[in-house]
Amino acid sequence: MTEVTRILAQYLVEARYADLPEPVRHQARRSLLNWMGCAVGGAQHPTLDHALAALKPFSGPEQATVLGRRERLDILHAALMNGIASHVFDFDDTHLKTIIHPAGPVASAILALAEQRRIGGEALMLALVLGVEAECRIGNAVYPAHYDIGWHITGTAGVFGAAAAAGRLLGLDAQRMGWALGIAGTQSSGFREMFGTMCKSFHPGRAAQNGLAAAHLAAEGFTSSNQVLEAPRGFAHVMSTARDFSQITEGLGESFEIALNTYKPFACGIVIHPTIDGCIQLRNEHKLAGEEIRRIDLQVHPLVLELTGKRTPQVGLEGKFSVFHSAAVAIIHGRAGEEEYGDAAVRDPRVIRLRDSVEAVAEPGVREDEAYISITLADGRVLDKHVAHAIGSLERPMSDAQLEEKFRGLSERVLGPERTRRLIQLCWEADRLKDAGELARAAVP
Amino acid sequence: MTEVTRILAQYLVEARYADLPEPVRHQARRSLLNWMGCAVGGAQHPTLDHALAALKPFSGPEQATVLGRRERLDILHAALMNGIASHVFDFDDTHLKTIIHPAGPVASAILALAEQRRIGGEALMLALVLGVEAECRIGNAVYPAHYDIGWHITGTAGVFGAAAAAGRLLGLDAQRMGWALGIAGTQSSGFREMFGTMCKSFHPGRAAQNGLAAAHLAAEGFTSSNQVLEAPRGFAHVMSTARDFSQITEGLGESFEIALNTYKPFACGIVIHPTIDGCIQLRNEHKLAGEEIRRIDLQVHPLVLELTGKRTPQVGLEGKFSVFHSAAVAIIHGRAGEEEYGDAAVRDPRVIRLRDSVEAVAEPGVREDEAYISITLADGRVLDKHVAHAIGSLERPMSDAQLEEKFRGLSERVLGPERTRRLIQLCWEADRLKDAGELARAAVP
Repeated sequence: MTEVTRILAQYLVEARYADLPEPVRHQARRSLLNWMGCAVGGAQHPTLDHALAALKPFSGPEQATVLGRRERLDILHAALMNGIASHVFDFDDTHLKTIIHPAGPVASAILALAEQRRIGGEALMLALVLGVEAECRIGNAVYPAHYDIGWHITGTAGVFGAAAAAGRLLGLDAQRMGWALGIAGTQSSGFREMFGTMCKSFHPGRAAQNGLAAAHLAAEGFTSSNQVLEAPRGFAHVMSTARDFSQITEGLGESFEIALNTYKPFACGIVIHPTIDGCIQLRNEHKLAGEEIRRIDLQVHPLVLELTGKRTPQVGLEGKFSVFHSAAVAIIHGRAGEEEYGDAAVRDPRVIRLRDSVEAVAEPGVREDEAYISITLADGRVLDKHVAHAIGSLERPMSDAQLEEKFRGLSERVLGPERTRRLIQLCWEADRLKDAGELARAAVP
Repeated sequence: MTEVTRILAQYLVEARYADLPEPVRHQARRSLLNWMGCAVGGAQHPTLDHALAALKPFSGPEQATVLGRRERLDILHAALMNGIASHVFDFDDTHLKTIIHPAGPVASAILALAEQRRIGGEALMLALVLGVEAECRIGNAVYPAHYDIGWHITGTAGVFGAAAAAGRLLGLDAQRMGWALGIAGTQSSGFREMFGTMCKSFHPGRAAQNGLAAAHLAAEGFTSSNQVLEAPRGFAHVMSTARDFSQITEGLGESFEIALNTYKPFACGIVIHPTIDGCIQLRNEHKLAGEEIRRIDLQVHPLVLELTGKRTPQVGLEGKFSVFHSAAVAIIHGRAGEEEYGDAAVRDPRVIRLRDSVEAVAEPGVREDEAYISITLADGRVLDKHVAHAIGSLERPMSDAQLEEKFRGLSERVLGPERTRRLIQLCWEADRLKDAGELARAAVP
């Protein structure tokens, strides 16, 4: 296979906003909205405090906003911080084919750039679509072999997406776009070993920062390989045991990976989502309050108990690894956001009583996005629910209204209701903004 | 194998300067001197100009020196620039067991740090020894499998060395040193595909910068894995097909990898060094000027013709890939520094005449650091020289005086003779300096 990198670079510099189908444009707005909510919501997490304490002394001019906070940093450091914040709750978007979280590396890079240089909303949204296209296609070419080796693909592929999107906004020609991908690729990194530590969300942040730097270096004539993707000692051979370059080069401009983006309705691992979804549906249909429930029986995919089988979580974070706790808060609160995974929630006696009444059985015949829920009431009645596809899946995507509600749950604690409302509106209107930097300036408490 | 990272981290925080044997201390001074000369000499290379044009707009406070230039940058960007400059001529040190260039990532990180915080010379030199120890031991554990995959080991292992050395200067405890290694490792990157582009010298620069950032993050409590080296999804499993962890953990504090460091006497690939060495010896012994030579016959290792078989180089850089040009300048100029690989040198009619008289034969029986040279004079006399081990090899290291001469060849064009003399002296006295930052301040034109 020849010229993989060149073909991709050529597309990235030539694609036009006018050629994006409206559903693709709308999915880009949804991706932006969801990313923004996660970044604002995550901005006050201790991970950010540590990162800022360590690196702010080295920041350059105050060029860009740390979303949801008062600090302003140079654009490279702002991209890092916003990338970290947007992933810190594990609540950001998912490209299910590769389990890349696409928006973090790309949006964090280009929104910082948009603040420094006056960039229009259409240009920003085109860059977002192209950055996601680059990272997800590169991911498609090496997934799952690359992930199975131990690479955290959001970091390793994300750096290409950030470079592609930023390079497009900097107006790189095809040669320099090729170099930008090369400089990005030779920084591709991030181990799955880091899951469970602050380094996990460091990965999309660093990908955003390093891709943004790569685009600036290429713009100034800093040379790199022209074949970083396909060369025998380049990305796909060095970092994967299998590869399919046609995933990168075929159908460019015809299909769009951002159209396959999905959003998590609940602030926990995706395997519990069908259970939570079904419990919330039963609660709402039957106006359940919890006290009238004698027991809850679940039939779920075997991974659910493997990954989230914690019976008696003691702190909020452990609640995310408990299908039992998740079912209980779904019934009692009708939602499963960050608050329902706080320390107070796992210690709430009502939640504990209900959690202890849950029985879960692994059924190999149940798909990952499927669940059977059966609730037995104190009066002996039995309420059943079969969730064929969980809310948030490709088959049953979250509605725009549900995305807004998720956004409010993340943002209102940080920005308050008025600024939150305005920021939601700006995200929906993003491609019509004269100055896309407005998005960032509106995300300050 | 358990606790590889923990054992290394423990050693890194406990080692004492008082326990370093004097030959190790002296080799550290030689490594510092050689690195400093390369960085000062490389500082005005176009690669640096491009990097500065791209990234200086994002630099923070003027905390540290770009050696050999007038710019001052924040310490992270200074570490990047000095790491690039020190490798841009491919003239820096080599740990032959792994072909890591050890000083670049480590010294570039810690000298910048020494400028920002008042750090003593002894602490700086201990950190240099420890950083080189960490990166070369980690390299030993995965070489050659890791390199054969396509990883540029100076970048991939170097980032650990920079984090270890900087972490020691920041006074990290063993837990935080482990995190620093983790944060460094999850940024480990750099493809051999980049050789021949500006990204090659970007690798040690980025390793210095990222390792330095890792140490600061760990110091502020940013968490990471405690098993980055040995975990199934950590460095040695993800980035290599073979590994020997005893190379990291055995004999810590007893043997020192910096004692195995070597320095290039000539500004070209190491395979031509025996030929150049022998030609210079014959020139000096017989006071040859070039005109009296009818032909030069070489018997060399087969790699010499494979890598440096260019018969008629047109520009200076091509001269580095020509054993013919190299033999000619060795006779005519008695040296092979950057100047002898300039455009003027390859176009010099005297050099061209002599170059065209060289015949080279690949002999499988000749070792890599060996060569046979036979010069036939116009009067029919034949002068022979057998180089058993080239100057610069472990068996025949460059003398301190030769290192100084190399330094002058690199530095005098940039700093002039007076400042060059003083900088050489400061390097030899480095461990006695009260304020090691003096080294950097003395390297400004």
